[in-house]
Amino acid sequence: MLKIISIKVSDIRVPTSDTLLGSDPFHKKPNYSCVYTTIKLSNGIEGNSICFTSGAGNDWIVFGVRDIAKLLEDYDFSEFMKNPSLIYKLINDHHQLRWLADGVNRMALGSIINALWDAWAKVEQKPMWKLLVDMPPQLIINSIDWRYLEDALTRSEALDILNENIDVHDDLEHSMINKGPKAYSTAGWLGLSDEEISKTIKEMQAKGFDCFKMKVGQDLNYDKERLSFIRSIIGYESKLMLDCNQVWGVDEAITYMNALKDFHPIWIEEPTARDDVQGHIKITEALRDLNIKVASGEQVPSPVIFKQLLQSEGIGYCQIDASRLGGVNDVLAVILMAKKFKVPVCPHGGGIGLCNMIVHYAIWDQVKVASHSKDQIVEYIEFLQDGVFENPIQVKDGHYVTPNSFGWGLEMHEEFFNDHIYPTGKVWKDRVSSGSITFLP
Amino acid sequence: MLKIISIKVSDIRVPTSDTLLGSDPFHKKPNYSCVYTTIKLSNGIEGNSICFTSGAGNDWIVFGVRDIAKLLEDYDFSEFMKNPSLIYKLINDHHQLRWLADGVNRMALGSIINALWDAWAKVEQKPMWKLLVDMPPQLIINSIDWRYLEDALTRSEALDILNENIDVHDDLEHSMINKGPKAYSTAGWLGLSDEEISKTIKEMQAKGFDCFKMKVGQDLNYDKERLSFIRSIIGYESKLMLDCNQVWGVDEAITYMNALKDFHPIWIEEPTARDDVQGHIKITEALRDLNIKVASGEQVPSPVIFKQLLQSEGIGYCQIDASRLGGVNDVLAVILMAKKFKVPVCPHGGGIGLCNMIVHYAIWDQVKVASHSKDQIVEYIEFLQDGVFENPIQVKDGHYVTPNSFGWGLEMHEEFFNDHIYPTGKVWKDRVSSGSITFLP
Repeated sequence: MLKIISIKVSDIRVPTSDTLLGSDPFHKKPNYSCVYTTIKLSNGIEGNSICFTSGAGNDWIVFGVRDIAKLLEDYDFSEFMKNPSLIYKLINDHHQLRWLADGVNRMALGSIINALWDAWAKVEQKPMWKLLVDMPPQLIINSIDWRYLEDALTRSEALDILNENIDVHDDLEHSMINKGPKAYSTAGWLGLSDEEISKTIKEMQAKGFDCFKMKVGQDLNYDKERLSFIRSIIGYESKLMLDCNQVWGVDEAITYMNALKDFHPIWIEEPTARDDVQGHIKITEALRDLNIKVASGEQVPSPVIFKQLLQSEGIGYCQIDASRLGGVNDVLAVILMAKKFKVPVCPHGGGIGLCNMIVHYAIWDQVKVASHSKDQIVEYIEFLQDGVFENPIQVKDGHYVTPNSFGWGLEMHEEFFNDHIYPTGKVWKDRVSSGSITFLP
Repeated sequence: MLKIISIKVSDIRVPTSDTLLGSDPFHKKPNYSCVYTTIKLSNGIEGNSICFTSGAGNDWIVFGVRDIAKLLEDYDFSEFMKNPSLIYKLINDHHQLRWLADGVNRMALGSIINALWDAWAKVEQKPMWKLLVDMPPQLIINSIDWRYLEDALTRSEALDILNENIDVHDDLEHSMINKGPKAYSTAGWLGLSDEEISKTIKEMQAKGFDCFKMKVGQDLNYDKERLSFIRSIIGYESKLMLDCNQVWGVDEAITYMNALKDFHPIWIEEPTARDDVQGHIKITEALRDLNIKVASGEQVPSPVIFKQLLQSEGIGYCQIDASRLGGVNDVLAVILMAKKFKVPVCPHGGGIGLCNMIVHYAIWDQVKVASHSKDQIVEYIEFLQDGVFENPIQVKDGHYVTPNSFGWGLEMHEEFFNDHIYPTGKVWKDRVSSGSITFLP
């Protein structure tokens, strides 16, 4: 019997607030951080996962993962590979933990689930995308928790989606191995200077990028100046996306975006509260004539909120995230729903390790679900890769390079890992003891 | 200057799973538990709050409250009394913690906020309801975080609501002191026998109760038998409410409730996922001709979900809860929105300490907001009161007795408190060491 023999979880943080990389109207000084979970099997294989956070609170999720781990002592791993929904329900429907609802609880669930899938891919000696692509459609269906989803997508509709383009899947997989999913770059962090942004954009253009995202929402005049500046560099042929990270109310979002319409962004990302389905619908309708769609996902707290956003045209771009939901089981469901409602899947990347994970979902979507690559773009952020991961994500000609290492490819360099353990690692111990970090009110 | 000098937080659990009190289709063996937070001021006053959970996971919130507490060291309490939204935003909009979204994070926020309000009421030497009733309308408005709410209710509409019935407020307060809000009883826990339920109902009838709630959703035939049995005791003049605790999908809820329509329940509570606004709307529409409304709230994870449920007729009864949201600041907003959309406020009680808290909100609603008591009923559950709280909640003639102790009235008997500290208190230390509790998969 193949058993789970240990679950280890670590609090890893990077002091990115020193440079303001990753800054937006709400997350002014993020320290890009992650909960790093390792599940060890009795055959020696280790499955890893990353759950991204902005710094403070990373330890809340670590605490949760440690608690959930008690449920899985000696769990039969072959049971998981036969029916990946059982262990998901064991945790998600736990009769006492369930009261905690989403947020920390679902992210802790996702940490465990994603590490299990990583171990599974390693057992099969495949990259995650390949494990998914090769998986029998019925097993994909069986891995999903359908309790709250079937009013939008039934199991049999989902099965039809996975089977309908079966004759082109091999070709699509082949061309995907040649050239991965199209990428876009988030260049315009709020805290950066014009020079820094200009430099980033030009570097990305040299790498074949022609879609760029910019943070907005702090001040209208400032945003207009910045967007003029950015359009002057990228021209009007390149795609521009905007992101305000939920800083607006519903009506405010509509007013603000009307004032920015001449910059012709293709989407406004997170225009209002993460869980405001009706608000997203209202904004979508108001911006329809401007040809600006709403994008969201990185903080959408549950598959049920995704379901509503998709079934009622609340979003025009579906930004699945690799660590916000309850892991692979949840994300597969969201990608299938996006297909039914004809919403392109444009995953949210950045943070630590998110780009490494989302590329696998993008490939599965473009090969097996959407079965095309016409309108999807995948976020790419070029930091915390080299020196961090043993198999850093690569881009070429504006596209991701399809990964070939087994699993997610989240193995970290030992030195980076040890240095960034919070609060005892080398990077942190002096800062924390001097009181300069932890909490910045 | 009046300062916050310490914040203490404890993990209190009661082994209610021994008796199956509190059991429902999802929460099969709850151990009624709470995060007990005490904020001490420099004048010696202590503010207390309770955040209810079902057992496991209580420590996750304790962990969160301890972390948030670091933000409030030496905080000037008079600033809080002048503008109660500042400290709320300091925590809720924290640039790193915000990533954690709702669930554990918002419940931890609520623990702190509710303890602050308790201290405030004690500074003013008033019960919580009286603090709220006496508060200038503008200060109520200023305590609310309006960022995501104004598309449904503007500040000036809220102010109008608080002022429109000003000439009857004194009379309403007077009669409320005489006889508190009308109560209803949750008698039909799933785990109880017919005899136990019959006994509970008869005791409650003797106390003047004529509204009863029953748990359903495990099995249709079982539910039909149980409901026949209950109707045979309470007759068809008494009101009957049903509650399935989110066990159904959307369409399943509609089918199931059609099968139970002859028992004439006035509401079905939590028919599906806590955050499925569109699902609630669909169920409401499908059950309209049956005269069955949808009730929800105890797990509604944010004021934004409440906003949507209220503005689009997703719920016909608004079950505010005392510890799910971010404390008083959030709940005041929900009660004001419920008034605008003409949805009766019927608070969720039970657990530990929830009934003690919700009665204050019910009084504020019935005196100052709805300004009538025509259609509201407030949940009442008769356990964990005597021997637990120094000022246990009282009922008389089917109504709550309006409390007159200062604050929420959440002070616990020292012996109960010490015995139930998890996992070291007298009640727990033998169970935990024998491995019989903690996690029940």
